[in-house]
Amino acid sequence: MFETIIEKIREHVTLSDDDAALLSTYLEVRKLRKNQLLVEPPYPANAEYFVVKGCLRHYFLDETGVEHTTAFAMEGWWMTDLQSFFTGAPSKYHVEALEEGEVIKLRRELKDEMFNKIPALNIYFRILYQNAIISQNERILNALSTTADERYLRFVKKYPALENRVPQYLIASYLGITPEFLSKVKTRIAAKKS
Amino acid sequence: MFETIIEKIREHVTLSDDDAALLSTYLEVRKLRKNQLLVEPPYPANAEYFVVKGCLRHYFLDETGVEHTTAFAMEGWWMTDLQSFFTGAPSKYHVEALEEGEVIKLRRELKDEMFNKIPALNIYFRILYQNAIISQNERILNALSTTADERYLRFVKKYPALENRVPQYLIASYLGITPEFLSKVKTRIAAKKS
Repeated sequence: MFETIIEKIREHVTLSDDDAALLSTYLEVRKLRKNQLLVEPPYPANAEYFVVKGCLRHYFLDETGVEHTTAFAMEGWWMTDLQSFFTGAPSKYHVEALEEGEVIKLRRELKDEMFNKIPALNIYFRILYQNAIISQNERILNALSTTADERYLRFVKKYPALENRVPQYLIASYLGITPEFLSKVKTRIAAKKS
Repeated sequence: MFETIIEKIREHVTLSDDDAALLSTYLEVRKLRKNQLLVEPPYPANAEYFVVKGCLRHYFLDETGVEHTTAFAMEGWWMTDLQSFFTGAPSKYHVEALEEGEVIKLRRELKDEMFNKIPALNIYFRILYQNAIISQNERILNALSTTADERYLRFVKKYPALENRVPQYLIASYLGITPEFLSKVKTRIAAKKS
C-alpha cells in the first residue's frame, strides 16, 4: 500500500525495513474525487499529501476573486500549504484535486514523533524542503524577470507531463497570463521550433 | 569563536559538546567590509553564511539594471543564494554586506560529510529550511495580494530592527515601490497610529 512512497524515500536515504514498517503506521491512504479540496482557507493545513495517482493544484484566491495558480503536483510529489502546515496558522492557499486519484496523508500532529522514532526522515525532509525552496525561488525569479515565452518554456521543463493533462486556462493562471495570450505564446514557440 | 552559532543551533536541537567541537572544524570566520559581495552572479554560491555581526542584503539585478531586494539578514540569520547553493548552478542573486561585520562560512563541499558526522544537524537544517520556505512564501503572497501599506507593516514585523539601520531606498526596493512612495506610506501609517 505504501510501496511508492517508501521507494521514493529510498531514492534519497537509507531506510531499514523496520523503519519502513514503522513509517507506514504514520500514514493514511485517501481516495480523491475530482475537484476535491485538500486544503481550504481559513482552515489550517493539517497534513502533507504525497500523490500516488492524480494531479493536485495549489492556488491563491485574491481579494478580487481571481485565482493565481502557484504550483502543480503529480505522482511522486508532495503538496500542502507548507506555511500553514509548519506554523499551524490559517491556510492561505487552496490545494485541489484536478483528477480522481489517491494520496498518502501525513498528519501534522504525528510528525514530531515520527522524526524522533525515524531520524533518517530528517534527512529526507531536509532534501524535500531544499527542493521546495528551489521551486518557490524559481517562481519568484519568474515573476521578477522573464517574459511569458520564457515562463512557458520553464513550465514545460518543470512539469513535462502536465501540458496535455491540465486545462489550458490553469496553465495560463500559473503563468500569470490570459488563456488567449498563452495560445499566442504557444504558436510563437511552435513557429520558432519548426 | 563559534559560540553564537552553537547557541543558535541548541535553540532547536540537542548538540553534544563533542558534536559542537566537531562542527567548528567545518566552519570559518570571515570579516566583512561594507559593500562586500559574498555571492555574485554568475559564480555559484559555494557557501552559506551565518551573520555574527552586521547586516546582509539579498537582491536580484534584472535585465534592465534594476535591483530587486529580496531579503535581509541580521545577527543570527543565515543567508546565501539557496538555489545555487543546493544545485551548484550559477547564482542569480547577489548577497552583499550592508555594514562592516563578521560571518561564519559553511562551505558547500563540506556539508554532506558534516551531515554524516553530525546527524543532529539534519534536524536543525530541516527546521531552518522550513523557515526559509515560510519566508519565501510570504514574499510570494505579498507580491500577489497586499497593498504597499500592508507590505510595509509586514516588513517592520519581519525585520523589527532594520527600519533605522538600512537606507530607505533599499527598504523601498524590498517593498517594490519608489522611495517617494515609501515616504508617503510611512506618513499615512504614522497618521493612522496617532
